[in-house]
Amino acid sequence: MNSKTDADVLIGGKLFTLSGYESEEYLQKVASYINKKIDEYNKIDSFRRQPSDRQAVLLQLNIADDYFKAKRQISILEDDIKAKEKELYDLKHELISTQIRLETELNKK
Amino acid sequence: MNSKTDADVLIGGKLFTLSGYESEEYLQKVASYINKKIDEYNKIDSFRRQPSDRQAVLLQLNIADDYFKAKRQISILEDDIKAKEKELYDLKHELISTQIRLETELNKK
Repeated sequence: MNSKTDADVLIGGKLFTLSGYESEEYLQKVASYINKKIDEYNKIDSFRRQPSDRQAVLLQLNIADDYFKAKRQISILEDDIKAKEKELYDLKHELISTQIRLETELNKK
Repeated sequence: MNSKTDADVLIGGKLFTLSGYESEEYLQKVASYINKKIDEYNKIDSFRRQPSDRQAVLLQLNIADDYFKAKRQISILEDDIKAKEKELYDLKHELISTQIRLETELNKK
């Protein structure tokens, strides 16, 4: 089990001390991803005009959208894995029956 | 191409009119995921004691953590797919060579 980490991260210029079992490197990566979004959004006039509590929710929505898109991709990959497992199963079956036929032919001699 | 959707969603009791190419159903699902997190967090004293701007960032961090965990899973699944593709390639190879040996034996007769 990992030991607990305390990490100071800056998000939108505010300091947060995060505590958890993730590495400091991971927590900084997550913070940097959010800061990048804040920077991108701050370039958009219609975003900057919103009060800060609404800006915060719009950011939450955007991050949650990334999350749901990732979940969609997970589901596609899982289907792909299932299809490949089926293909592997069928191929193994075919290989075994071909090997048996070959053995039979070889034993006929 | 999908047509543009306008959807009214409630997040943390505030109304947001979201505009985009996602379905209203999807936008409501994303909103409901965020509201669930808000409800969960509001049960935690140390969260409720934070000023609302810090609460908003803590929520962003939590959602981003879900996103990064999903990305990690994507990477594991992609590795799995690559391994299965390699296995499929090897099996096809073995099947073909077994089939050729069988053909050769059958033709000897």
